[in-house]
Amino acid sequence: MTDVVIAGIGQTEVGEHWEISLRDLALDAIQDALKDSGGLKPQALFVGNMLAPNLSNQAHLGALITDYAGLTGIEAITVEAAGASGGAALRQGYLAIASGMVDVALIVGIEKFTDKIGADVDEALATASDSDFEAVQGMTPASQAALLMKRYMHENDVPANGFAGFALTAHANGVANKYAMFRKAIKPETYAKAEMVSDPLNMFDIAPNADGAAALLLTRRDLLPRDYKHPLVKIAGSAASSDTLALHDRKDMLYFDTAQISAGKAMKQVGIVLDQINFFEYHDAFSIYAALQLEAVGFAIKGKGWKLAADNAIGLKGKIPCATMGGMKARGFAGGAAGVYQAVEAAIQLRGSAGANQIAGAKFGLIQSLGGPASTAVSHIIQALD
Amino acid sequence: MTDVVIAGIGQTEVGEHWEISLRDLALDAIQDALKDSGGLKPQALFVGNMLAPNLSNQAHLGALITDYAGLTGIEAITVEAAGASGGAALRQGYLAIASGMVDVALIVGIEKFTDKIGADVDEALATASDSDFEAVQGMTPASQAALLMKRYMHENDVPANGFAGFALTAHANGVANKYAMFRKAIKPETYAKAEMVSDPLNMFDIAPNADGAAALLLTRRDLLPRDYKHPLVKIAGSAASSDTLALHDRKDMLYFDTAQISAGKAMKQVGIVLDQINFFEYHDAFSIYAALQLEAVGFAIKGKGWKLAADNAIGLKGKIPCATMGGMKARGFAGGAAGVYQAVEAAIQLRGSAGANQIAGAKFGLIQSLGGPASTAVSHIIQALD
Repeated sequence: MTDVVIAGIGQTEVGEHWEISLRDLALDAIQDALKDSGGLKPQALFVGNMLAPNLSNQAHLGALITDYAGLTGIEAITVEAAGASGGAALRQGYLAIASGMVDVALIVGIEKFTDKIGADVDEALATASDSDFEAVQGMTPASQAALLMKRYMHENDVPANGFAGFALTAHANGVANKYAMFRKAIKPETYAKAEMVSDPLNMFDIAPNADGAAALLLTRRDLLPRDYKHPLVKIAGSAASSDTLALHDRKDMLYFDTAQISAGKAMKQVGIVLDQINFFEYHDAFSIYAALQLEAVGFAIKGKGWKLAADNAIGLKGKIPCATMGGMKARGFAGGAAGVYQAVEAAIQLRGSAGANQIAGAKFGLIQSLGGPASTAVSHIIQALD
Repeated sequence: MTDVVIAGIGQTEVGEHWEISLRDLALDAIQDALKDSGGLKPQALFVGNMLAPNLSNQAHLGALITDYAGLTGIEAITVEAAGASGGAALRQGYLAIASGMVDVALIVGIEKFTDKIGADVDEALATASDSDFEAVQGMTPASQAALLMKRYMHENDVPANGFAGFALTAHANGVANKYAMFRKAIKPETYAKAEMVSDPLNMFDIAPNADGAAALLLTRRDLLPRDYKHPLVKIAGSAASSDTLALHDRKDMLYFDTAQISAGKAMKQVGIVLDQINFFEYHDAFSIYAALQLEAVGFAIKGKGWKLAADNAIGLKGKIPCATMGGMKARGFAGGAAGVYQAVEAAIQLRGSAGANQIAGAKFGLIQSLGGPASTAVSHIIQALD
């Protein structure tokens, strides 16, 4: 199979865009990606979106966005897998190119949280968990993550503030990312004094729900414009896996099977081992997710993922740099766009354009997009070709 | 590329399943399809669903359904393109097999309308149209179809009851389909006396929203079990297209561009002409859609699609048999499952198992799934190989 390359990237600033509509956000990211690709024309659009039917009373985003972006006529669908929608849309675009039936695919991740506020947002988010057995009890993703974190801390003797490292790293890395929602480093005291949301989960263990859109143009390497100006970046590995939707149905809720399975498959496709991965964009919607992903993927042994953060091994100069552009915690969690932001940021790293946040000599980046507590995981390995 | 075959099919009765949950409906169809395939094991699930986030407060159906069906671990996503969600899910499964990265794909179309009633259903359906410019005016799919039908009748001098043929054919064909919601033939007088829903659209111009699930197992021909017992049926052509979401943005709202583009591409892939197609499963959510599809695909000239129905050219022994198992009008419109039902029914025809509804010697069937007024169209050509 010919190489599937990321030919163009685009992203909007993540934040509370009260005055910008869902379609306008998507358009901004798409226009940037089209321009960045040097003039490629997409034949198919894959929208990663999590909650627009609930938050914006709008389904059928494929036709909405192709129309608004001046791409009427091309095929277009929405791909949904809760928080993993962005990663899943990327995978569908990848498969379309790999099939040989689509030459140029446009992926756009989009979420517009500010079309609703307060409890309506919680209700929308709860549709990602098991409606009949979890949401019906009043469980939200945050309260569920708190239970998971409490159990983890109990089983693994994690001290109070043991998770601080995740937020410290994310906020430190967000400072130089002009698309990040929060661009201010925080101190350990800030984490320690933060308001509790759902014990033991404090304000800094949760990524902020925010509006944003990110876009990618994928094509085959041989179809790139002759004067293509960026260092080449390809999708080297792509895999996904699903687990029980309800957390209580797991044999071991403190091990993210799907994170292990999908990352393992993707690495096998590329033929690399963990040590060759230069950075990891995990799905830090909650710090406990980040810890469990570090363990499932294999960067830490079970129960010790939090230590990597506490020891600053996940910093830009650490053993395995994570959330290199601020992650979901500081860049912001833009729902179905989150997985596409990861891919855009990985491409920036692998092109060598990450500025102050550059991982020197980065060749392989692993990005992982989760739906719910890893009920879905989608993993991609992005590779620098030059 | 190796042939992509439909190895297994399953469907539930379409109707008002007040007592059966969304996941149970999906499970029924899946179990039938798995059994029908002779024991194939899927590696990926593609869910076609239109409205569960609104109707059932449930997103993330991929993980929900793999879990409930005992398929935990495989990858799973939801594909959404309004009423074309089923056709779009089929296309994603097809692309996954064609890419060589997935060997066996399970497609399930599912919709559970009876989780909500009345105005809540209208509100959910309206998310398929342009929320900011159409739904906000109170427009529903039915009221929009009525406007379209009125304009069509005016421009083409269609007499009162000129559309009766669509419902007469559908109901005649539904009688022998044990999965159909309505199994009773109707008379021209029944159509003529039917209650008006939104002038000129009467009760028999609208397919009933109903609960249902349909499933398909796709694989490569060389991976079929050695003792595979059904006549071989393959997906010979697959294409999709999108148009403006809002109807008022079209140059000519009485021509379904996407129906023409997607069917044309699919036929070109197969290398056949229109005359070689033995039956057409159109998207008769509204009779006006059926008329416009007959024209856009090329079975009738512009303005004369209704005449094919009036002249009974769409009957089982007509020039181009349509809705051969009852279509959406009599089998029932099960939202995101609709496009998958079409594929299941086409496979039944091409296996030669359609009983009283069999199109003798059928070799090629065209199925077309629409989202909104053809804002999305997905076309597949299903072919008998024996």
